[in-house]
Amino acid sequence: MKFGGTSLADVDRIREVARRVKACVDEGNEVAVVVSAMAGTTDQLAKWTSDTALLHDAREYDVVVSAGEQITAGLLALALQDSGVSARSWLAWQIPILSDAVHGNARIEEINCDDIERRFDEGQVAVVAGFQGKGEDGRITTLGRGGSDTSAVALAAALGAARCDIYTDVEGIFTADPRIVAKARKLDRITYEEMLEMASQGARVLQTRSVSLAMNHQVRVQVLSSFSNSMGTLVVDEDEVVEKQVVSGIAYSRDEAKITLVRVADRPGVAAAIFGPLADANINVDIIVQSVSEDGRSTDVTFTVKEADFERAVSVVKTAKRDVGFDRLISDSDVAKVSVIGVGMRSHAGVAQKMFSALAEKGINIHAISTSEIKVSVLISEEYTELALRSLHTAYGLDAA
Amino acid sequence: MKFGGTSLADVDRIREVARRVKACVDEGNEVAVVVSAMAGTTDQLAKWTSDTALLHDAREYDVVVSAGEQITAGLLALALQDSGVSARSWLAWQIPILSDAVHGNARIEEINCDDIERRFDEGQVAVVAGFQGKGEDGRITTLGRGGSDTSAVALAAALGAARCDIYTDVEGIFTADPRIVAKARKLDRITYEEMLEMASQGARVLQTRSVSLAMNHQVRVQVLSSFSNSMGTLVVDEDEVVEKQVVSGIAYSRDEAKITLVRVADRPGVAAAIFGPLADANINVDIIVQSVSEDGRSTDVTFTVKEADFERAVSVVKTAKRDVGFDRLISDSDVAKVSVIGVGMRSHAGVAQKMFSALAEKGINIHAISTSEIKVSVLISEEYTELALRSLHTAYGLDAA
Repeated sequence: MKFGGTSLADVDRIREVARRVKACVDEGNEVAVVVSAMAGTTDQLAKWTSDTALLHDAREYDVVVSAGEQITAGLLALALQDSGVSARSWLAWQIPILSDAVHGNARIEEINCDDIERRFDEGQVAVVAGFQGKGEDGRITTLGRGGSDTSAVALAAALGAARCDIYTDVEGIFTADPRIVAKARKLDRITYEEMLEMASQGARVLQTRSVSLAMNHQVRVQVLSSFSNSMGTLVVDEDEVVEKQVVSGIAYSRDEAKITLVRVADRPGVAAAIFGPLADANINVDIIVQSVSEDGRSTDVTFTVKEADFERAVSVVKTAKRDVGFDRLISDSDVAKVSVIGVGMRSHAGVAQKMFSALAEKGINIHAISTSEIKVSVLISEEYTELALRSLHTAYGLDAA
Repeated sequence: MKFGGTSLADVDRIREVARRVKACVDEGNEVAVVVSAMAGTTDQLAKWTSDTALLHDAREYDVVVSAGEQITAGLLALALQDSGVSARSWLAWQIPILSDAVHGNARIEEINCDDIERRFDEGQVAVVAGFQGKGEDGRITTLGRGGSDTSAVALAAALGAARCDIYTDVEGIFTADPRIVAKARKLDRITYEEMLEMASQGARVLQTRSVSLAMNHQVRVQVLSSFSNSMGTLVVDEDEVVEKQVVSGIAYSRDEAKITLVRVADRPGVAAAIFGPLADANINVDIIVQSVSEDGRSTDVTFTVKEADFERAVSVVKTAKRDVGFDRLISDSDVAKVSVIGVGMRSHAGVAQKMFSALAEKGINIHAISTSEIKVSVLISEEYTELALRSLHTAYGLDAA
């Protein structure tokens, strides 16, 4: 069981979580609980680090921000003991959860569960501080924002757990963001591949890395709410999804910016001249579209980056102008990416075509298109985001009855 | 250098502490810094633990409350780096600072300074989280309230430090509490023995245990303010104090309660019958006075305990009434203990007599007396505390010019 920050926001909520864990123990389960920090704590700690120093030593950042999970781990162990459940807290260095030494964004390398499993035999619940690891350098590491999801999935894999329940403040995974699409439905099941696309296409319920970890280790993940008692969404292998939808869900991201280079010389090596410097600057490029050359000598190249990288990307490309050779640079950060996702696409033609017609019907212009085996993404003007989501939700027959 | 919670209360104060440490480094010193939690943090964390659970597992309490020092250690390391000083934070388990497993009140057993000393050679400052240890059980321990003083002295001893500077919110050790005695003077030097009596007689500047540790390992401790630049008070060996005062200071404690057993049977074994059960109940008895038996058959016994133990002590003694045999129990918690302290007493007669006359002159009645080689303590009615302190301060010639 993994509980996020809103589920552990104060002492009352922590005691409520303890009741939920106790109920699971009383059903005869051996339980490990992974906890996030209280809502707001990590932000406060991170702000103190940035207020303290302009220079940013990620090793010290990790020492400071990992304190939040240490506090909730101890408190939840106390709350469980108070409700009659044997429990103890575990910090990453005590288990240990070993990671690489990439501070602030470390990867788990190995978890030794021997002590925890021995205590399972004595009926003890393990309360594990999420988000943290012990680095190869012997220091505390953290796994990146949302890293407690990864802690939970990695621990579930190491323990060979029957299931990894991720308790959050939403009821599960929906066909679309219910704050925008009123007719969105909660999915009972979704495949790892779909969830991975949903997470990386903007759905913020699970950290992307935790989903790929679950897929690689075949960990059955359930996303559910700690504020209700309803079933959530199971994230499972494709074999376990009986009725495969052509389209399972629609994701969006407003965190996009578009850059177009007009009349780029159409010669070998020009793509490397554009995208090499961007890669060197650690800027991820998402969609790339190269228009067909009309005169055989020049072409237009459009690509997208995250909004946070936008200004830096423009400056990098301008610096490379002499090597690339282009007439003009047009940029636009008022764009959004909308994606339809579903494993059923593999065996169904016409999915993309339906998307293009539905958007055309509403007069929504498509700036760029990107496809994968189980996803079609389009870039549109940001102001059309809600309209596009609702239209596509209806067009693919996803609306709740 | 050790900094307390008020010296690290917020990011601005932490940056100010970094400037102070940098100045010390720039003078060519190798520096280890021990930090407390931000003022108020430990209280907040302790409150969360008591709000969460009625049962109190000290091991989980330690996990929660030790987080405060982890945060300030990381932040101070960042602040030092930001001011151009090489620094890293150290948690107890990383050094390690090994302790016994008496959670909530652990004792340091061993500190391995090899890593820290190696980094001194590279010019790096060690920022050490105070108050915490790694227990024999492999878990985090804490050293009791004020335990960061003990961390600092123990680390200074292990490093063979030239000095241990304890930065606090007062200017040093005074001849008496300056909030009560306006003419109190800051002492330039005080002996370990005197400081130990001052600390255990109510002066709250240093944790008692840290003073006895300093005495045992001959660590030169300086108590000084982080809010000014004046010299503090050096706590040193008696040999280093050239001009020994007969009386160096006057301490007081309002945290006292008196219990008198009237007409106790005057026979062998009666003291054991009274104080055995109190010891079994873990109640510390301070002053004990037995009046001279008038009839050769019965006597009155008076003793004092801390106010927190008062009601429990009364109940223990009442339960033991049959074994002890006494007429009546009289109790009074409105009492205070006033002590005059000075190593010079060893070679000067008449110190106690001067105390008794000075108090008699002001009409202050003495309920009980207790003496040691370098201290005379009297128990008086609490309402006379201020008057007694000021009169004694003048009588012993301690008033500032």
